[in-house]
Amino acid sequence: MILRDARREDVPAIVAMLADDELGAARDKIVDPLPQAYYDAYDEIAADPNNQLLIAEMDGEIVGTMQLTVLPGLSHRGARHAQIEAVRVASHLRGKGMGRQMMALAIEIARARGCGIMQLSSHKTRMDAHRFYEQLGFVASHVGMKLSLS
Amino acid sequence: MILRDARREDVPAIVAMLADDELGAARDKIVDPLPQAYYDAYDEIAADPNNQLLIAEMDGEIVGTMQLTVLPGLSHRGARHAQIEAVRVASHLRGKGMGRQMMALAIEIARARGCGIMQLSSHKTRMDAHRFYEQLGFVASHVGMKLSLS
Repeated sequence: MILRDARREDVPAIVAMLADDELGAARDKIVDPLPQAYYDAYDEIAADPNNQLLIAEMDGEIVGTMQLTVLPGLSHRGARHAQIEAVRVASHLRGKGMGRQMMALAIEIARARGCGIMQLSSHKTRMDAHRFYEQLGFVASHVGMKLSLS
Repeated sequence: MILRDARREDVPAIVAMLADDELGAARDKIVDPLPQAYYDAYDEIAADPNNQLLIAEMDGEIVGTMQLTVLPGLSHRGARHAQIEAVRVASHLRGKGMGRQMMALAIEIARARGCGIMQLSSHKTRMDAHRFYEQLGFVASHVGMKLSLS
């Protein structure tokens, strides 16, 4: 399995994985053509050196995705934080260690980018995800809060 | 009260506010001279159009700080997220509505940047902060997880 930067032509496959999820299905849908907003977001990420939209690929097949953002900040003595968002593994491959491999590679990327801390937030109902991240060493020390601006 | 971009000469005042906090005191300390890492982090933020280190100023006095990061992303139909980090109000002004004003101005900035969602994480022990954010409409829907990479 390799983890590589997403290409523009991967956007439909990424959106399909975002939508193929209990919570994601309410927010993202696969329609043809895909709304332009997805491609605009891809272009913004691709143009930003602190953002990486990543694809897990195995034998030429897209099997997962995640986004890694490097957050500069003054706190923790100026330590960069690596934030992980929108993690998905293709449904037919869940529970087979794919997520663990993806996170290990993401941690390598974050270290190479000089990040001292990795952080993510996960919906309260995703108990399996919490256990998964805790097994990787994450500590559920925070409450994640969201405010809709629309 | 105004909310403005921090200047390089504001860095010591910002670090002082980060350190003047129950949890922050373990991570950030005011020493003279201030470690270069804080200035390096400031320079990184200042050079990044998706990051704003903000200062709340009242009658020429620095009374608060926060960082706002615009996160592009595919999920939620390509909606930008505004992430808030490192919120502090000067200790002698806490509980006087300063935080509420700062957040209201941050929400304006986030909307102007086209963000559909604002998000933050707050340590589990900061019960007052959770109540404060919930009063502003935030929903504590997520678990925030951290992994030390150092």
